This record gives sequence, C-alpha cells and structure tokens, in this order.
Amino acid sequence: MAAAVTLAEVIAALGGDLHGEASTRIERIGTLQGADASSISFLANPRYQTQLASTAAACVIVAPALAEAASARGAVIVTSDPYLYFARLTQWWARRVRVRAVPRIHPSAVVATSARLGEGVDVAALAVIEDDVQIGDGAIIGAQCVIERGAVIGAATRLAAHVTVGFDCKIGERCILHAGVVIGADGFGFAPNAGRWEKIEQLGAVRIGNDVEIGANTCIDRGALDDTVLADGVKLDNLIQIAHNVRIGEHTAIAGCTAIAGSTTIGAHCTIAGAANIVGHLEIGDHVHVSAATLISRSIQKPGLYSGVFPFDDNASWEKNAATLRNLYSLRQRVLALEKKNSS
Amino acid sequence: MAAAVTLAEVIAALGGDLHGEASTRIERIGTLQGADASSISFLANPRYQTQLASTAAACVIVAPALAEAASARGAVIVTSDPYLYFARLTQWWARRVRVRAVPRIHPSAVVATSARLGEGVDVAALAVIEDDVQIGDGAIIGAQCVIERGAVIGAATRLAAHVTVGFDCKIGERCILHAGVVIGADGFGFAPNAGRWEKIEQLGAVRIGNDVEIGANTCIDRGALDDTVLADGVKLDNLIQIAHNVRIGEHTAIAGCTAIAGSTTIGAHCTIAGAANIVGHLEIGDHVHVSAATLISRSIQKPGLYSGVFPFDDNASWEKNAATLRNLYSLRQRVLALEKKNSS
Amino acid sequence: MAAAVTLAEVIAALGGDLHGEASTRIERIGTLQGADASSISFLANPRYQTQLASTAAACVIVAPALAEAASARGAVIVTSDPYLYFARLTQWWARRVRVRAVPRIHPSAVVATSARLGEGVDVAALAVIEDDVQIGDGAIIGAQCVIERGAVIGAATRLAAHVTVGFDCKIGERCILHAGVVIGADGFGFAPNAGRWEKIEQLGAVRIGNDVEIGANTCIDRGALDDTVLADGVKLDNLIQIAHNVRIGEHTAIAGCTAIAGSTTIGAHCTIAGAANIVGHLEIGDHVHVSAATLISRSIQKPGLYSGVFPFDDNASWEKNAATLRNLYSLRQRVLALEKKNSS
Repeated sequence: MAAAVTLAEVIAALGGDLHGEASTRIERIGTLQGADASSISFLANPRYQTQLASTAAACVIVAPALAEAASARGAVIVTSDPYLYFARLTQWWARRVRVRAVPRIHPSAVVATSARLGEGVDVAALAVIEDDVQIGDGAIIGAQCVIERGAVIGAATRLAAHVTVGFDCKIGERCILHAGVVIGADGFGFAPNAGRWEKIEQLGAVRIGNDVEIGANTCIDRGALDDTVLADGVKLDNLIQIAHNVRIGEHTAIAGCTAIAGSTTIGAHCTIAGAANIVGHLEIGDHVHVSAATLISRSIQKPGLYSGVFPFDDNASWEKNAATLRNLYSLRQRVLALEKKNSS
Repeated sequence: MAAAVTLAEVIAALGGDLHGEASTRIERIGTLQGADASSISFLANPRYQTQLASTAAACVIVAPALAEAASARGAVIVTSDPYLYFARLTQWWARRVRVRAVPRIHPSAVVATSARLGEGVDVAALAVIEDDVQIGDGAIIGAQCVIERGAVIGAATRLAAHVTVGFDCKIGERCILHAGVVIGADGFGFAPNAGRWEKIEQLGAVRIGNDVEIGANTCIDRGALDDTVLADGVKLDNLIQIAHNVRIGEHTAIAGCTAIAGSTTIGAHCTIAGAANIVGHLEIGDHVHVSAATLISRSIQKPGLYSGVFPFDDNASWEKNAATLRNLYSLRQRVLALEKKNSS
Repeated sequence: MAAAVTLAEVIAALGGDLHGEASTRIERIGTLQGADASSISFLANPRYQTQLASTAAACVIVAPALAEAASARGAVIVTSDPYLYFARLTQWWARRVRVRAVPRIHPSAVVATSARLGEGVDVAALAVIEDDVQIGDGAIIGAQCVIERGAVIGAATRLAAHVTVGFDCKIGERCILHAGVVIGADGFGFAPNAGRWEKIEQLGAVRIGNDVEIGANTCIDRGALDDTVLADGVKLDNLIQIAHNVRIGEHTAIAGCTAIAGSTTIGAHCTIAGAANIVGHLEIGDHVHVSAATLISRSIQKPGLYSGVFPFDDNASWEKNAATLRNLYSLRQRVLALEKKNSS
C-alpha cells in the first residue's frame, strides 16, 4: 500500500455518507482489529460488531443501522452495503498504488508476426505468442506466458506469469488468470484396447466468458469433441481441476482444490467450497451450494446446500466409530430384528 | 477441426465396413447429440442407442449388432469395437489438422553445447536444455520447458509448455507431458531433530517408461535413495501428486487430483478415480480399482473395486447423520445391550 | 550419486563411532534391502531390524543398542540417532556430487537495473527479475523464475525452475522453493453484488521465514489486507493450497495436496498429513496432528492426533454401509424407542 488519501477523496471516488472530518488522512485499509489511526476499516459481519468499540481505525464503513453507534468513536462512512463498498475501495486503492507502466512489448518476448495485438497491449519479458493469436485492446500478458497458435485473449484481460493458453482456446474480456494456470491441456480420454490405453485425441477447445477469474495452477482441459465452457463471471480459486467438456454457468464460484470430472454441467450462481469433488456426466442446477470436501455423486436439480463428510474427532474416537461403521448395515439388521421381536 | 474428408478416405486409413455412400464428405467428429450433416459420430455405449434415431450425423460408427438398425438412417461404419475405432479416428484426424512445422531449434532456446539431440528434434521458443541432456529422435520440447542436466527424453516424446524435467530423470519414448508438469522435484523427506526438521537430500531420480501420458501440473518426485518409477503405458491426469519412491505398474490409469504417498507400490492395469488418496508404504496389487475420493489406508492384494466416501445429502440430513455418527460406537454398544437383554 | 568415499571420510565429516575398516570404500547410500557391497545403509526403525542380517551393505548406521548385533555382519557406525545421521549423510553426499558451477547471471536472464543482487547470487537462464527486487548473498534463482517487483529473496535461498514470487513478497534465508511454486497470487476474495461477484483486491503480501521448504506447484496466496505468513522452518509438500491470511507456526510440516482455507491460523510443530483440508477462520494450536484426508471443521486447542475419514471397503460392503449411513439418525431414534420400550 502507498501514499495517503483523504476521506474527501474516498467519498468523491466511491460515494457514501461521511460523518466526520473530510480532511482525515488515510494511509491503509485494515481489519477492525488490525487497524491503526491511519487506517480505514469496515464492519460487514454483525459478528464483529463488538470490535467497533476497540478499533483504532480513523474511519469505519458501516451500514445505516450502525451509523449512530459507530459515529460515537470517530469518522464513519455510511453505505447500504459496507462489504461491497469495501470491495470497491480495494479496487480503487489498487488502481492508485499499482500504477501500470506505459504498455510495451518487452524486447525479449517472442511474438509471431502473424499475431494480432490490439491497442495498448502489454507483453512482459520472455512471453511467447504464437501464430495467429489475437489479443484484445489493453490486455496484459505476464512474464513467460505461452499463448499457443490461434488462441484469443479478450480486451483488458490480464495474465499473470507462467500462464499457458492452449491452441485455439478463447478467453473473454476483463478476465484474470493467475500464475501457472493451464488452459487447454488435453482432456483425459482413452479407449481400452487389449489391456492398453489408446489415446482419444482431444479435438475441442476451451471457451471462457467475460469477467472470469482463475486461480494459480488451476487447469481447464480442452474438450474431446465439443468445447469446455466457462460462462461469464465464473470465479475459480487455485489448484482446481476442470475436466474436458465441463460446462459452468454464470457467476458460479469454486474454491481451491476442487475437481470437476468430465462432461458435468454446473448451473449458474452456484458456490462450491474447497476440496469438493463432482463426478462426471452429472447435471447440477442453478443455486446449488456444496460444502467443503464433499463428493457429489448424483445430479442435483433442487437449489440448496449439500454436504457429506465424515466428522473428524480425536483419533481414538474416530477409530472406534469408523470400525463400527464398517458393520453399519449389519447393525441396522440387528435393530430390525430387535424391533420385530419386540413387536411380536 | 479442419478440411473435409470422404468416408472412403476414413475407411482407407482405419478399416471397417462401410454401408453407405463412400463419397460422403465429413468435416468434423461429433457426439450423436451434437452432430450435424457434416459429422461422423459413434455409438459405443448401448445407453445412448436411443440417440441413434435422432442424430443428424452423416455417418455413425457402430458394432455389428447395431449395423442394421443404424443403416436405416444413413451411412454406417461397422467395426467390432466402435469406441476404439473412434479413438483411432481422433488420432488420424489430429495428425491431419495439427500439421507440425519442420522441426527446428528455436533461436531463443538455450541449449547447452554438451546436450545431445537426435534427428528431427523440435525445441520451441525459450526452452532451456542443460548440460549432458539426451533427447531422442523426433522429440518435441515445448516453449519454456526446462530440461535439467543429465536428463534423458526418449524418441517421439512430446513436452507441452512449461514442463520441468529434473536432473538425471529419464522419460521414455512416445510419452506426452502436459503443461506445467514437474518431474523430479525433491521428495518430502525430513528427519526430526529437536523440534526442527533436518532435510534428507533426495538422491534418487524419476524413471518413466514408454507411452506414458502425464496431465497438466502433475508432480512426480524424485526418490530418496532409489528411483520413483512409472512403468510403460501409465496414464496420469492433471494435478496428481506422486511422492518419492512410488512405483506404478504397466497401463495403470489415475484420474485427476489423486495423491499417492511415498514408497507405495501400485500394480498393473489398475484404475484410480479422481481425488482418491493412497497412503504411503502400501502394496496395491494388479487390477485393483479405486472409486473417487476414497482413501486407501491398507494394502490390497485382491483385484476388485474399492470405495469409501461419506454419501452426500442435503445439509440438514447430513448434519443429523454426521452428529449421530460421532456416537456410532456407543450406539452399537446400546444395541448389544438390547440384544443381551432380549435374549435373556 | 558419484565418486567413492571411505568410511574414514564419512566419520571425519559427520562423526559417529566406527566399528570396522576405515578404508572401506562407499559408492552409494542405500536402503538395507537395496544395498550392495559398495553401499552404506542405516537402521532407524526397529521394524526393519530383521533386514540387518540379510543386507549386503558394506556399513550400517545403527543406534548403540544394536551396535553389537550389527557388528557381527560387518562395519557399523554407531550414533545416538541413526535417522538424523542418515539425513546429514545425504546432505554431505549431495554437496559432494552436486558441485555448483561458479555463480553467474546467465546472459539470457532479464534483470532490472534497479534490482539489488548480493554476493555470489546465481541467476539461471531466462529468469526474470523485476524492478526493486532484493536477492541475498548466495541465493540461486532457477531457470525461468519470475521475481516480481519489490520482492525480497533471502541469502542462500534456492528457487528451482518456473517459480513465481509475486510483487512485494518476502522469502527468508536458506529456503528451498521447488519448481512451479506460486507465491503471492491473489487470495480468493469477492463481495456479492446483485448476483455477481465484485473483486476484493488483495492488498497484503506473503511473508516466509527462514529454512522453509515449499514443494512443487504449491500455491501461497497474498493476504487481503494483512499478509499471509509462514514462520521459520515450515515444510510444505507439493500441490498444497495456502489461502490468504493463513498463518502457519514454526516447524509445522504439511504433506501434499492439503488445502488450508482463508484466515486460519495453525500453530507450531504441527504435522498435517496428505490431502487433509482445514476450513477457514479456525485456530489450530501447537502440536496438533491431522490424519490424511481429514476435514478439520472446528478450531482445535488440545494437542493430539485428529482423524475423520470413511473407512474404505470392497465396493459392495461400502454401498450397503453408506446407504445405511444416510438413515443413521433415524436408526438411532429407533434404538432409543427400543430402549424406552425395554425399560418400561
């Protein structure tokens, strides 16, 4: 973080009602607990309301219901959705401190003469851009990215370092791909042949909509025949595996280390927590939410929260319960027998 | 996909009995559902037989038993194993459309003078090939790969972009390593020393057989003393972790996000579904199949399918069942007491 | 492994009491089973004591209690902690065989003029070092690493190939980062906004202590406001996800494919087995040990071993038990009813 701003500048940029001194200087954004007298903070979750009294923050962003309580201790910005205001504050802050250099094609980059680059495209050191690639206006290609032949990168999309975009794959506008992302590796497809595996060449590609963010080292495989598709606004965390021909609907968000197996369709506005797994060839509807580390093994049409994980315990308790579980069916049969006997 | 072919050309290349017009032009390979009048499709799984009537495909590849039914609607290619025929069709198709340029060492690649490259080796932009590396005839080294000193890459093996092959590791012939693969990072080995960890240097390497395919961002660690070994025909999907001194037998296939812990041996012709985990120092025999997200915690000698995962449910049901599970052992004791009482 | 040494040289470098011929030549380090007449081996785990009689090793490292038994078959080195001695032997061995070339900045590396490199820093081919980076004495930057602006790499730290260190992140001294590691990608933070996700820019960084080792393709995200922090001596295996604002205490070791969600704090001297998952905003105390594939969903203060995983079985048994489990709560209610009836 960097140079100070005044609350007046914050309000001018982002709106909200300021109760307090507009000339107050802000040097950083902090949590309520971590804030100091040069910090602006926010209260979005009522659970943290008790921290309001003790925070050292120069200004706190709050909802109208808390305006009075918060004003008692110093400057406040009142807004209908403090968390959203905070998100926009971070965006405004990042734009201020991460000033981009004038875009340029670094001389060490290897750019095919047949590649078509838009206005203001920035290509960092040692990136490779192959034949017939198209890159939209204002896109940023990070150091040592590889954009294979025929791929398309939309305007204002940003690739961090070491991203691979496979041939013929298409990335939309305003996307962010973090370091190590691999788009368009071959899907995992083989036909059995007398004890060996015969490769099924993956002839589809990957199509990614606008405003999609993809976390570090996440992999999205190309389709076998048709494409693998991510709709607009999808957000993927790190180390996620998206297999061939998966389709993910708009504004669905998936946390780290989750795997979606081949040909599964996931609806719009879903959230899938970390380390969940969804087997192949399923249909998951809109507004389905999956808990961490849950295996989804059947299609789900009904919106709601779905879970399935063995509750952890101290190891001794777990061992006894897990051993019993291996005979759970016979335990049920014994209960049935008892019930029958008791009812006779 | 690209330029059209006739069914006569398909038959000439791949065999099979054609029922229909040999001059029919094919522009793409499609699923039964996705096919159009320029598509060739296939029916391998009887489950999809109902799609045969409605597909728009110009030609469908079928087994002899379905030849008559399929012929009623248009051209068919009859073959004993339609799925295998389809696999070979994709291979033939990919060779046609992905015409390789004349192999060359890209001038931006950094190739040690002591490296020995075979005939027709292709080294893409910005690849690094260190001292004493050997690369077999016709191998393809992708953009920005790093082949460390003394590594060996077999003939006709293809490395996608950003692959790392560690020093002294050996890759066989006709292998495919997808983007971001790391072969030969250090295994995770430490000796405890008064509350700290003392590194055990990993002095082994990785040895990979022929016809092995390894998915994007998968990691195979070098052995501690002996080597980590993958036999011929092993197929690994993306984001898999193979720890030091693991040994995997011939033609075993492992789906994405699976982890195999150190020194475990896995037999030949096994299949391990996605996100499974196998703990260290186990022996898994041949023809063992493991379901998705299952933890294998003991050795398995007997061929068969093994599973172990908490069934998911709506969250409310799961919460009740999971809470009960934490007292499963005492529930069993209560059933025992009831049985004793009832039998007395 | 390379050129032979004598047992006298081993003792001179690492100490221990030699019983046997000091001029014995050693060409490799091996397991008891894999050793030949030119090998030195070790016996740390009493479970392998039976292998002592049959090993072909020229010399075995043993604890005092086994000195006599082991001497009967050949040379022994007696030391209080054979496993630690073995670890140090591997370190000494690796230093001998992996002789570093004279450090140099490879001419193909792209190093900003504002970067400050210490004495004896080695920068491999095609690495990118951006503005204002600081690199300590004797550090090694691998081929095709990207060190973004303002990052700090401590003295004697070693980065393998393809490592990304994000802007403003700090790595301590004597660390090892394996190939494909991503430090400082954005944490996964979004505010909901009318069905869409609004990005929360991640304004913190990553701070990593001394003597930390990080496995291949592991990702450690930058903090949202404060930093993500790994204390001294932390050891992470491959393909691990460390989310934003996680804090990990000294000398905690985490095995492969584990995920730690955002803002969770993990104490010192913990061990977390492979493929475990720890949800966000938890506090895990010191000396907590977590079994493989376990989901930790609540904070843990008490030291100990914690587990939670469905025991695997042959698929038929699992199906019956899992189906019963989905009605476990009602089974418990039925047992309650039986108990009530029986006691009346």
